[in-house]
Amino acid sequence: MKFVEITQPGGPEVLNIVEGERPTIDRHEVLIKVQAAGVNRPDILQRQGKYPMPKGLTPIPGLEVSGIVEEIGADVTEFKVGDAVCALTNGGGYAEFCAVPAAQTLPIPKGISFEEAAAIPETFFTVWANLFQIGKAKPNESVLIHGGASGIGTTAIALGKEFGLNVFATVGDDNKVEELKHSATVINYKKEDFEEKINALTEGEGVDIILDIVGASYFNKNMNLLKKEGRLVIIGFMGGNLVDNFDITHMMVKRITVTGSTMRGRNLEEKREIAEQLKEKVWPALQKGRCKPIIYATYPLEEIAKAHECLDTGSHIGKVVITLS
Amino acid sequence: MKFVEITQPGGPEVLNIVEGERPTIDRHEVLIKVQAAGVNRPDILQRQGKYPMPKGLTPIPGLEVSGIVEEIGADVTEFKVGDAVCALTNGGGYAEFCAVPAAQTLPIPKGISFEEAAAIPETFFTVWANLFQIGKAKPNESVLIHGGASGIGTTAIALGKEFGLNVFATVGDDNKVEELKHSATVINYKKEDFEEKINALTEGEGVDIILDIVGASYFNKNMNLLKKEGRLVIIGFMGGNLVDNFDITHMMVKRITVTGSTMRGRNLEEKREIAEQLKEKVWPALQKGRCKPIIYATYPLEEIAKAHECLDTGSHIGKVVITLS
Repeated sequence: MKFVEITQPGGPEVLNIVEGERPTIDRHEVLIKVQAAGVNRPDILQRQGKYPMPKGLTPIPGLEVSGIVEEIGADVTEFKVGDAVCALTNGGGYAEFCAVPAAQTLPIPKGISFEEAAAIPETFFTVWANLFQIGKAKPNESVLIHGGASGIGTTAIALGKEFGLNVFATVGDDNKVEELKHSATVINYKKEDFEEKINALTEGEGVDIILDIVGASYFNKNMNLLKKEGRLVIIGFMGGNLVDNFDITHMMVKRITVTGSTMRGRNLEEKREIAEQLKEKVWPALQKGRCKPIIYATYPLEEIAKAHECLDTGSHIGKVVITLS
Repeated sequence: MKFVEITQPGGPEVLNIVEGERPTIDRHEVLIKVQAAGVNRPDILQRQGKYPMPKGLTPIPGLEVSGIVEEIGADVTEFKVGDAVCALTNGGGYAEFCAVPAAQTLPIPKGISFEEAAAIPETFFTVWANLFQIGKAKPNESVLIHGGASGIGTTAIALGKEFGLNVFATVGDDNKVEELKHSATVINYKKEDFEEKINALTEGEGVDIILDIVGASYFNKNMNLLKKEGRLVIIGFMGGNLVDNFDITHMMVKRITVTGSTMRGRNLEEKREIAEQLKEKVWPALQKGRCKPIIYATYPLEEIAKAHECLDTGSHIGKVVITLS
């Protein structure tokens, strides 16, 4: 099969299409003939050599795919050969075939294309786990989403709206403000101080939850913006990972919870639980045409370098997807 | 009535016994004829002018009392005049009479003296709220208690043991190690690095929960010691309140929760809920003679300055109590 190899750490040019053996599957896995695969920020970090895959997993990048079940493991009962599915992979998505645990595989919701389906797993698993499981978002609470135009951001905005949250988001240009302003209160952080702006918008009340991909450089502003019993859920550190001047008395007085997670650190059972909750709570909305992923650009596998360049520039709104013929 | 006045911010010598009017009670309050009152660290900070009472509350110090119900408010149905009770006050405990919301008042468990009962509310409310409600401690989990010999510490050790936790504690001298070693694995932090020691004791596994009164100076060691899904609950900042070099990636990978609280910041309903849970889950143990508070020293009201000196020196193990004739 064809797959993408990272020849050495570096820019998009280190991504090479090569030929190799199909993966073999374990008893609990399915082999998916990949139709489309999502491109995500961890793939960029992996390409740059900053986020290597754990030992024992494939070095092929690609954390989500859609496609057709080609083979099933001996213990798999939920799927049969020929099913149209999407899956959160443990790597290996940039390839013609990908082996994935059945527990991380979901049927493609009715009315969703392969391109769209490939754009769902990584951000939907991530947002569900962090905003709803860890962040315990409840209807009518307010949430601030940093990086609102990213794949995670657009998904968080869509799911926040679907589940009755009052959504604020920060983005880096006015074009993104325009695109997203119908779903959330969107702030261009380059033009306005987001802390001042949200304080003004909420009459100093702040928000209940912050889902943050920025990290250290936003930390103290985030803490200032949280209400009593607020939750700061950190899932990225594009603004650094070392926080200074964290005032714990401030946290104690407001009883704030600071937490975060990575998807890669979760084991099979944890991912199975997320998948089950998504199927029960989010799939019905997708089937009714709501919460659809926003696809910014689609490239054929052969143009994987262009797909990475697109994410590198940061001008995208939503997801970048690659397709396989 | 007699009560203690803080004449100006300062050392124990600023505490003066004066005479004044009894407090009046609201519809939801009881008036307690005080038999004994607990002395707590927030009282020391209040005396030093560092932790003034919120507006609208009495300036008289004293966060917990035991005594006899002298009067009940129009809406109070749970208590009658003559009942022996203990209560978490909203200040005013260092006095012959103290007005307290009925929701923060509990019957004295059978077999518990007035001195012991006065030593219960502040630390039991605090430990219940932070170790069990916020920290979600579950049987067989491991917990590290910093300041193990303090009122909070000895209570946390006792309740930890009662509810099936594996308890580690840090203390500042060998005398305290000796006194507490039958209830917990106790470390003299002045002789041994607690992070190294607990890593050695747990074969590098660390602990599930840390209840911390030290704050900034222990923060990064605490984070290093927490297991996957560990919880750091901060309830004091004797080691400073500003944390530097907080590595959020480390928190994300282990999915640690950092949180904390103050008792003073809680409203009546929140305190009522804690009181109800204590009555249901902890009072039966007290009535069977378990989890009794450790009384280190008792002084008559007239020697309140000595009681504060005792807490100031930090050599105590357990609680300091004042009694009223």
